[in-house]
Amino acid sequence: MNTKTELDLKSLINTHIATLALTERKPTHLYQPMDYLLSLGGKRIRPVLTMLAYQAVSGRDPREALNLATAIELFHNFTLMHDDIMDRAPFRRGKPSVHTRWNEDIAILSGDALFALSMEMIVKDFPEKAAELTLAYSEVSLEVCEGQMEDMDMAEQEDADIPMYLEMIRKKTAALLGGCMRMGAIAGGASPLIQQKFKEFGESLGLGFQLQDDLMDAFPPAGFGKQVGGDIIENKKTFLLLKAQELAHTAQQQQLAALLALSRDEDNARKVAGVLEIMNDLHIPQLSQQLIDTYFQKADDLGKELAENTQFGALKAYLELIANRKF
Amino acid sequence: MNTKTELDLKSLINTHIATLALTERKPTHLYQPMDYLLSLGGKRIRPVLTMLAYQAVSGRDPREALNLATAIELFHNFTLMHDDIMDRAPFRRGKPSVHTRWNEDIAILSGDALFALSMEMIVKDFPEKAAELTLAYSEVSLEVCEGQMEDMDMAEQEDADIPMYLEMIRKKTAALLGGCMRMGAIAGGASPLIQQKFKEFGESLGLGFQLQDDLMDAFPPAGFGKQVGGDIIENKKTFLLLKAQELAHTAQQQQLAALLALSRDEDNARKVAGVLEIMNDLHIPQLSQQLIDTYFQKADDLGKELAENTQFGALKAYLELIANRKF
Repeated sequence: MNTKTELDLKSLINTHIATLALTERKPTHLYQPMDYLLSLGGKRIRPVLTMLAYQAVSGRDPREALNLATAIELFHNFTLMHDDIMDRAPFRRGKPSVHTRWNEDIAILSGDALFALSMEMIVKDFPEKAAELTLAYSEVSLEVCEGQMEDMDMAEQEDADIPMYLEMIRKKTAALLGGCMRMGAIAGGASPLIQQKFKEFGESLGLGFQLQDDLMDAFPPAGFGKQVGGDIIENKKTFLLLKAQELAHTAQQQQLAALLALSRDEDNARKVAGVLEIMNDLHIPQLSQQLIDTYFQKADDLGKELAENTQFGALKAYLELIANRKF
Repeated sequence: MNTKTELDLKSLINTHIATLALTERKPTHLYQPMDYLLSLGGKRIRPVLTMLAYQAVSGRDPREALNLATAIELFHNFTLMHDDIMDRAPFRRGKPSVHTRWNEDIAILSGDALFALSMEMIVKDFPEKAAELTLAYSEVSLEVCEGQMEDMDMAEQEDADIPMYLEMIRKKTAALLGGCMRMGAIAGGASPLIQQKFKEFGESLGLGFQLQDDLMDAFPPAGFGKQVGGDIIENKKTFLLLKAQELAHTAQQQQLAALLALSRDEDNARKVAGVLEIMNDLHIPQLSQQLIDTYFQKADDLGKELAENTQFGALKAYLELIANRKF
């Protein structure tokens, strides 16, 4: 597996999305927003992982899982469309979000239809695995909904803690990474044990990636060029903030509380600098990196087990390729 | 099939919904609204039809299709939850709608989760039919979304006409009546031809029921006790209004336009009376009844064909029972 092959799978998925001819379907207000959101791009990591898990298990051409993989991408975009409404997010990948470009009613219904459409593509090419695939799909989609609700709930909860945060991101983000690989493995004919290992492998990667994202939001690598501290400005209850609150001595707790109470735009720089200083004093970046390493180590161990039982090479090469990228 | 049996199926479905233990699941904000909406009641016509179609085709105990039937009811409630947001409906069955009782974000996400949960229950008991069932479910759920979008679009369209209206209600309302019977028939092992006949049978009934609803909204039977003309007050583009606009001579067209322009609450009685008078002059109730009879006749013909090939007795008895009720 080399960069070319990875790009091939990604472009296969993009081509396949185009063949759905969403812009030609009626009513326009239902299908146009689907096409719009799907056309904003993205790395298509989930469907590529679905295809590679299928290939690893079956030893067959990953293109056989193209409908299944594309269904996962449709599902992911359905969740983005609805999450953007709930998060009042005006933009998605630098373009107006669907509810901004059209309206909330259209974003609700177009998202629903994306979910409805995806179901067909889950089972289409694997009729003999349809029950297993649909059960796995139902399970993971329910977990993603639970994760999104827990995220909204946590924003209001005074007693939010690290286990709650980890469980929330496991469901909201990591579950689909695990689920897409599990479903690729199911389609490929994997045993329940191997299915489970693919699921845990994907979830461990997903947790590591999300925690890495959070860490880079506050402590970006040199030359990363991203605005620093978006999560801090929004008082987002990430591992970093929750850990800082947990470890802070009384004076630091008071300082943190005072900083978090700042809400005017002109205080943002002071707020970010103050919170970062406390986090540094408490060695939060190192603690975060340790936790990230734990999850990646778990993924690595599972990957080694999977490599003994499946043709894991292409999947491993792809993961190495994306490992150092922004997820 | 007698009233008792019909009540038995309905109460079986209600009991089965209770066994889902939605109130015990976490996060509460996700599952509580599902339980709330499902507990507001309803006649459970769709799941009863699913079970009876299963029984008619297979000759087996309809309870074997209880999960499948309940999934259809979950789907129906998912659409109600989202439709109420889009329709700005503060009430559902005389109680606050989910987005009123909680908020819109919760109604969006809880609806999504209801859809996700339903998928599992579609395939659970019929693994060997899972692909066929899921494809039918995807198809009908997409049609329902299309119908809802067409309904919203029509409200804004100056050139809305009767074919558009009939296609809209076919998708928005009738498709699920057809789809639930088709899915019961699939689970029961019906041939594609019989599946198709069940689908058309349910759709014909659904179209007849919806047109009857529209007719009764404007011209309720004596002693019906419902507020008259809700659709007229809202300028809803029903068959009645569209047909009246089509047949009206110039003076009546102007009168109608003037009446439809009335929007103050205190003008409602005058508006309804004026529109009803024009509709009566143009024999709209009779034309509407003729169309209703056409759909019910089509259902009757299909029912006779199905009775030759399936054990149609219990289904027929149930339909006779509900035929004269408000749908």
